[in-house]
Amino acid sequence: MSKEIELELTRADGGITAAIGFHATGSSCGIKKGGYKDIALLFSKKPCEIATAFTSNKVKAAPVILDIERCNNKISSIVINSGNANCLTGETGDKDARTMVARVEENLKLKNDSAMVASTGVIGQNLNMERIIYGIDKLTRLIQGDNNIRDFSYGIMTTDTRPKNVAYSFKIGTKTVTIGASAKGAGMIKPDLEMTLAMPHATMLVFITTDAKIAKPQLASALKNAIKLSFNRISVDNDTSTNDSVFLMANGLAKNIEINEENENYKIFAQALLIVCQDVAKLLVKDGEGSSKLLHIIVKNALTATDAEKATRAIADSYLVKTAMFGSNPNWGRIVAALGYSGAKFDIKKLKLYINEILVFENNEVNRPNVSTATSEMISNEITITLDFGLGNKSYFFWTSDLSYDYVKINAQYIT
Amino acid sequence: MSKEIELELTRADGGITAAIGFHATGSSCGIKKGGYKDIALLFSKKPCEIATAFTSNKVKAAPVILDIERCNNKISSIVINSGNANCLTGETGDKDARTMVARVEENLKLKNDSAMVASTGVIGQNLNMERIIYGIDKLTRLIQGDNNIRDFSYGIMTTDTRPKNVAYSFKIGTKTVTIGASAKGAGMIKPDLEMTLAMPHATMLVFITTDAKIAKPQLASALKNAIKLSFNRISVDNDTSTNDSVFLMANGLAKNIEINEENENYKIFAQALLIVCQDVAKLLVKDGEGSSKLLHIIVKNALTATDAEKATRAIADSYLVKTAMFGSNPNWGRIVAALGYSGAKFDIKKLKLYINEILVFENNEVNRPNVSTATSEMISNEITITLDFGLGNKSYFFWTSDLSYDYVKINAQYIT
Repeated sequence: MSKEIELELTRADGGITAAIGFHATGSSCGIKKGGYKDIALLFSKKPCEIATAFTSNKVKAAPVILDIERCNNKISSIVINSGNANCLTGETGDKDARTMVARVEENLKLKNDSAMVASTGVIGQNLNMERIIYGIDKLTRLIQGDNNIRDFSYGIMTTDTRPKNVAYSFKIGTKTVTIGASAKGAGMIKPDLEMTLAMPHATMLVFITTDAKIAKPQLASALKNAIKLSFNRISVDNDTSTNDSVFLMANGLAKNIEINEENENYKIFAQALLIVCQDVAKLLVKDGEGSSKLLHIIVKNALTATDAEKATRAIADSYLVKTAMFGSNPNWGRIVAALGYSGAKFDIKKLKLYINEILVFENNEVNRPNVSTATSEMISNEITITLDFGLGNKSYFFWTSDLSYDYVKINAQYIT
Repeated sequence: MSKEIELELTRADGGITAAIGFHATGSSCGIKKGGYKDIALLFSKKPCEIATAFTSNKVKAAPVILDIERCNNKISSIVINSGNANCLTGETGDKDARTMVARVEENLKLKNDSAMVASTGVIGQNLNMERIIYGIDKLTRLIQGDNNIRDFSYGIMTTDTRPKNVAYSFKIGTKTVTIGASAKGAGMIKPDLEMTLAMPHATMLVFITTDAKIAKPQLASALKNAIKLSFNRISVDNDTSTNDSVFLMANGLAKNIEINEENENYKIFAQALLIVCQDVAKLLVKDGEGSSKLLHIIVKNALTATDAEKATRAIADSYLVKTAMFGSNPNWGRIVAALGYSGAKFDIKKLKLYINEILVFENNEVNRPNVSTATSEMISNEITITLDFGLGNKSYFFWTSDLSYDYVKINAQYIT
């Protein structure tokens, strides 16, 4: 989260439609029961440079396999369905993904192999292609005139409770450039992306658009760096999805001087992209299945980066820490116990543990008055847990959610 | 689980009091609110060879540290309190643990350093030693006459809902030998014991007694092997406790020919011990916090043992698999997704997945009629998930519980 660049960002509306030349809309075609929106389309008239990142799960859904084949093409459109992940669906699933992109290309008169596809929902069921084709035909008609980020956002949702849209504008030279993102997440969230690279664990789908003019290598590099410090730093339930995908499309319509090396303008773009990705990552955790609190876990002054990461992740993954936080209980004992089995090198006598900046443990001893103070702050929906190892200068951070009744309810009933 | 030895076992009553010469009882001294039992004592007039295993968590509670010092002594008694783990309690905690064993030794006129101690409950609070001493004095009076396994069992419980006692008798030569165990578990259960060795993740306390005559090296070796295939194969919540301890005491009163090498009699003893430990391990998972189902995860015919273990543990740890099982949903898709991120080598086309011996996935395709059959069996309180990799001959197994509302309830409210 280096802040070398002084960046003036202006919030913009519309998520992926905020940047010039991007269109998005969504609708329902009958995959989800009850008429809920379940299909969505993203389109740029000008073909885009694209950077992508997909799940590192060895079981990859059909759309992910198809998109990986196309990740060196210029891309004009992405079609998304929710309610069915088209994963573990055999050769039929593979054929269905190809039919989806071919239909989009035909209807929008695009070049061959210039559309991508993403799916999220139930695993192991074949798509109802009659409904999907009906939906695609509807959306390709709508998208030429309409622009409806709300319908797009609902069209990509599964157990999400609200749309997740972020956009910022900033200057590159004299030109205003915009980066916008729209995402869905909720469960099966622990991204671990490889940059076609690959992606987080989770059925996380993130669409990012920008009108910046930027060459593919720089686009990919900026995305890779941003993912490391955003989507690969979040978890809801520690389950890595088969469908995780991040797409970053750049159409160049802002007409800035092209970014084709890692110069000052690149740094500006990369920094803005990081902020967009971190905003989206936090929105995903906040709306994680059953989530009532965003937990920000920080380890600092560790001897090695690996120690800092191990400790942070063990605490973030602990059922006992997560349920304590749901119960608004500043349970420092469970945090230290998780640290104890994390495998990280630490010295309990040098450890300082803060909950929301209140020092609750130091010199191998609890500070009981401070625990009381911390308790009164636990109703907040954002909790920061900081462990200062006092040994070196390495740090790590991670965002996770608490573990609530609703997580169990959603996942005992939902057929992924 | 090799069964080379043909073993005739007879179930016995009384857990740790089933073997000749062992006495146990429990009482309440006011550590737990509401008059619940919270202190217990185990005693053998004849000093015992002992084998122990303790948590691998780097944060070790005061009683664990003291017991490790004494693990080469002959041991006559173990005092246990519940309601307070005496962990992260600083120098006072260390002193308190020493006061507890000294009081037992004094009251029972034992040799110095021949008592051990175990604690379980809240982390980070000092013991009320006035109450503890009151409790110890009461128990050391009671234990000389009385033998009350029920009170012992309740005295060691935290969130357990029922006592866990197992005992078997068998022949070594012409002599009848008995091994009995009493345990508490419930939450913070994922043993990962090292043999003083060390032990599972979890506040799991397991007391095992035997009247077998067996030398210390063979006793330790038998325990080490048994733990590998029992307590280190279970998890409730994937959190490794600071207090996990397994104690195996042998007083020799069965008067069998001493086992002092790894001969046939050793194999009989080791096999019986393994069965006792596996029975206890399963009882711990069945009574895991909020547990409604015992899940038995098996991977077989993997290329390497590491692949089999990685896959088994990833599936057993998956929130999504555990919540699906709670929902009685044979969600093969989540199982395959967890396999996908496990890091294990597998070939999806060769994978066969069984739920309760019903083949639900094969040839990269779901068997839908069989999924329906499996669904109707999911109300059972034991579910077996078997993955046949079809690649080699290595296998692994693991027992875990499902993830329910009650797990969240217990841990959002309970102050560990």
